[in-house]
Amino acid sequence: MSVKINKSEIMSQIGELEDLKADLYGKDFLLTWEKSDAQLHSVLKIAEILKQMHSENIDVSMFKTGLAVSNFRDNSTRTRFSFASACNLLGLAVQDLDEGKSQIAHGETVRETANMISFLTEAIGIRDDMFIGKGHTYMKEVAEALDDGYKNGVLNQRPAVVNLQCDLDHPTQTMSDLLFLKNYFGGFEKLKGKKIAMTWAYSPSYGKPLSVPQGIIALMTRFGMEVELAYPQGYDLLGETIEIAKNNAKKSGGSFKISNSMESAFKDADIVYPKSWAPYAVMEKRTKLLEQRDQNGLKELEKECLAQNAKYDSWECDADKMKLTRKGEAVYMHCLPADITGVSCKKGEVSAEVFEKYRIGTYKEAGYKPFVIAAMIAACSKKNPAQILRELYKKAEKRVL
Amino acid sequence: MSVKINKSEIMSQIGELEDLKADLYGKDFLLTWEKSDAQLHSVLKIAEILKQMHSENIDVSMFKTGLAVSNFRDNSTRTRFSFASACNLLGLAVQDLDEGKSQIAHGETVRETANMISFLTEAIGIRDDMFIGKGHTYMKEVAEALDDGYKNGVLNQRPAVVNLQCDLDHPTQTMSDLLFLKNYFGGFEKLKGKKIAMTWAYSPSYGKPLSVPQGIIALMTRFGMEVELAYPQGYDLLGETIEIAKNNAKKSGGSFKISNSMESAFKDADIVYPKSWAPYAVMEKRTKLLEQRDQNGLKELEKECLAQNAKYDSWECDADKMKLTRKGEAVYMHCLPADITGVSCKKGEVSAEVFEKYRIGTYKEAGYKPFVIAAMIAACSKKNPAQILRELYKKAEKRVL
Amino acid sequence: MSVKINKSEIMSQIGELEDLKADLYGKDFLLTWEKSDAQLHSVLKIAEILKQMHSENIDVSMFKTGLAVSNFRDNSTRTRFSFASACNLLGLAVQDLDEGKSQIAHGETVRETANMISFLTEAIGIRDDMFIGKGHTYMKEVAEALDDGYKNGVLNQRPAVVNLQCDLDHPTQTMSDLLFLKNYFGGFEKLKGKKIAMTWAYSPSYGKPLSVPQGIIALMTRFGMEVELAYPQGYDLLGETIEIAKNNAKKSGGSFKISNSMESAFKDADIVYPKSWAPYAVMEKRTKLLEQRDQNGLKELEKECLAQNAKYDSWECDADKMKLTRKGEAVYMHCLPADITGVSCKKGEVSAEVFEKYRIGTYKEAGYKPFVIAAMIAACSKKNPAQILRELYKKAEKRVL
Repeated sequence: MSVKINKSEIMSQIGELEDLKADLYGKDFLLTWEKSDAQLHSVLKIAEILKQMHSENIDVSMFKTGLAVSNFRDNSTRTRFSFASACNLLGLAVQDLDEGKSQIAHGETVRETANMISFLTEAIGIRDDMFIGKGHTYMKEVAEALDDGYKNGVLNQRPAVVNLQCDLDHPTQTMSDLLFLKNYFGGFEKLKGKKIAMTWAYSPSYGKPLSVPQGIIALMTRFGMEVELAYPQGYDLLGETIEIAKNNAKKSGGSFKISNSMESAFKDADIVYPKSWAPYAVMEKRTKLLEQRDQNGLKELEKECLAQNAKYDSWECDADKMKLTRKGEAVYMHCLPADITGVSCKKGEVSAEVFEKYRIGTYKEAGYKPFVIAAMIAACSKKNPAQILRELYKKAEKRVL
Repeated sequence: MSVKINKSEIMSQIGELEDLKADLYGKDFLLTWEKSDAQLHSVLKIAEILKQMHSENIDVSMFKTGLAVSNFRDNSTRTRFSFASACNLLGLAVQDLDEGKSQIAHGETVRETANMISFLTEAIGIRDDMFIGKGHTYMKEVAEALDDGYKNGVLNQRPAVVNLQCDLDHPTQTMSDLLFLKNYFGGFEKLKGKKIAMTWAYSPSYGKPLSVPQGIIALMTRFGMEVELAYPQGYDLLGETIEIAKNNAKKSGGSFKISNSMESAFKDADIVYPKSWAPYAVMEKRTKLLEQRDQNGLKELEKECLAQNAKYDSWECDADKMKLTRKGEAVYMHCLPADITGVSCKKGEVSAEVFEKYRIGTYKEAGYKPFVIAAMIAACSKKNPAQILRELYKKAEKRVL
Repeated sequence: MSVKINKSEIMSQIGELEDLKADLYGKDFLLTWEKSDAQLHSVLKIAEILKQMHSENIDVSMFKTGLAVSNFRDNSTRTRFSFASACNLLGLAVQDLDEGKSQIAHGETVRETANMISFLTEAIGIRDDMFIGKGHTYMKEVAEALDDGYKNGVLNQRPAVVNLQCDLDHPTQTMSDLLFLKNYFGGFEKLKGKKIAMTWAYSPSYGKPLSVPQGIIALMTRFGMEVELAYPQGYDLLGETIEIAKNNAKKSGGSFKISNSMESAFKDADIVYPKSWAPYAVMEKRTKLLEQRDQNGLKELEKECLAQNAKYDSWECDADKMKLTRKGEAVYMHCLPADITGVSCKKGEVSAEVFEKYRIGTYKEAGYKPFVIAAMIAACSKKNPAQILRELYKKAEKRVL
């Protein structure tokens, strides 16, 4: 199923990457809004070049040996496989850091552990999305510990830390979403003025992270899109991410609006991204209860929260709402797995009819993720990724005999 | 301990493989009885070539990068290591799909998960042998999901699905058993007319899968062997596998017979394969109870079943019964681990004396499995495996410096 | 942070390695005191050459494919990562043998399992340190099973067994400690006459293994050091390791002394290694209780033992005690993680002030371990490791593009 692209096009893409002069070497990829436009485009371009080279059966392993550490502080199947695929593609072997049922570790432990697992490590992927105010903080602690170890000669190399979802952002997801949209509409320029509805949707579960909606509004506003965030009253996101979205929209010539109506958001939308999340206030309360190991409190909170959710079970992406979108043909997006009415639950985020129509698209959306992760690792661990990609493309060793 | 074979012999083996023209490319390996003779011989030949090349320290890695997913829905040590060894031999990195304690997943979930884990995946090994009517069905669902994803451009490549044991068949085991026998007796031709006793044996445990006896009677009957299946009344296998064995025997000029006597089966046997299994009816009942999560029902069933087993504790492979076999020197086989009387249990499938005599043989029997699995992956994922093996053999890069 | 060493120096190191003629091929690395001086120096030299080549970005993978099995019968993060790093550095893929919650396996099971996991395996790392009289015994059982399988043609190759900590010794730790000291003081010759205080230290936990102090006194006495072992009455080590230390000291011209005073040991020490352990007698009692699954007995023992520990909470390595050492500037060592007063516990083995002063040193000490493990595997699985290292160094393929 590989798309043939002529050789000169890949080479010109690599040239464009070089021209970006986006220095990510020695850095981490934690939040999109910490990165310059050139840095974002650099990662996106590397991801597309890697995806193309993979489809042409060209070996892109940049590491002969080296470990990649995965640290999942929340369950994960998809991101685990995306990370494993990305690392393997580059030639790294994955080793899980299984903290077991230990609580969130702090202070000395983080500093020491970060070094102990890194003597021959080139990349560390972390997922820590359950606790408001914790995930991103933890990733920064790990990063600082690695800086300390590298500076003091403990480590021969400084592993790149990649955020596989934190309490603030989910950059490997949103960058994959962005690549999907860019290719769907035919280029980043085409995204300007397109309306995207990032909306809450009903789910019979509770406690879903806020990182996807926060990451989407912060990222899509940078590309001149008209972003409407819609949710029932009480389902607010973190204030700081709202501010980022507002500022980005101003700079890019796009717009950012918040409403409390799914219908309003869907109206004339080019893209809809209906997805459930827990209100920020609930997540904060939950973080405290988890810290206090208050099982009764947690059960009580879940009950309350599900009752609150139930009030908004009309927030389902169904065929009628899709008719409100531009020509009734907006593209539907989801980070998967979606709660599909009548399939994975009685009533959920999306009707079976709508999901089935866009199913293959959502799979393709997900298919960018391994390459985005690989691109982040390559960008952060290589002084000149363009030169390496050019060498690999010229060499054109078969990945598979 | 490598056996020296001259170079022209390996090359002629590769030539024979090419002549088989057995197209397995893009297919899965789920049941031996779905495969043509040429396809079976193709896998067997690749396995032997790989084993020989390994013993000659020749690198046979056909993949520079790529994932192999293992999905064990039942505990496993041996098959897990065989699969890991096979994939590593070919150059693939293994990533476990750990479904945790979730129930058997159906519908959307299987379709979606199969694609989500496969973006950079070349092979998927599945063990699902606990539920009558489920394991093979699940594997087919995964395979269909991969077809769908590949056809729709979600996947760059179609991973090969390998059955690591289902409710119907255990092809990686039985093909290893077959290779062991072929080399023991000196060729496939020599197997014609040989009598194999596939018999039930007593075990103090319960719920052992039926896949090995079913797989053995279905496979060995294809090679002109005289197959006698023996078990106490009530320990029936699935009817459909009995029919397959009958038909195969007719076609191959061998024979297939069922008896209720271990002694009858051992009489003049060239090979004995005494192994415990649960009656089909019990496994069906168990599947229902497991679905209903009926813990009391399951305990009750176990008690009944063990009591029933106990009535047949004379079904042990001991020195006296071995005397009944051809010249008292039949070869003893087992898929391991065996329940050995006085070693791993008070009373079991085989006496310590008999097991010890044949122990090294059973280890060698098991030693074919990594190469059989590697052969299945190579056969199903390569358009022309013979050509690749020829290249690798000519290149003769050292696997180990 | 790589240290530049000129090419001729690495080559002369490889020459020295060759001159040692230390035949470890086909052997295991279980206890330092089973090894000749030449064998120890051979492993140490390979470790340093590998570390240097890694820092120069030279690929040292000696295996194109092959498995390394890790068998952790006790929890581990650091050693797990060191083993994974070491194997990956050499080109091996790690596969965990997860015995689950099964009891220590004996007899047939060990013999069979050892072979079943080894068909394509090149190295097996085992940690089994919880049971006095068991860990080393188990490793020998595995080794004998592998000898049996290799001799009988079950295995194409004999995997090397590496002791990742047993009840007697912790050679990967102590050899790393030794390399750290050798480089700290500027050569093995400089270690002669240096005083090392291997002392017990207070910890609020219980049941810590004896392998580190036993391994340290047995190893450091071989290098002409003045070893003082100090512990409160009742915290004895295994008698056999005391005898080894005594004999080694006699042969090397060093000394070995036991005292019951931390202050006495610290007096004029060049090196201090304060570390908690459980008394031998307690560990024996614990082994029995664990075998009997006597939960109440275990709780009772823990209570008693913690109360006993508490009597010696003055055995903390603090700034005042450090003043007793040579010029108040002894080097502090620890195998990590240390129980740090006010950081990881209320009161522990070492004060925060002392630990922080030496923290980076302890990290560097740990940084030798992956290379020591890799060296053990290389030494035990290669006929002529010097020749292979020379080839790799001449070839100088980039490990990382």
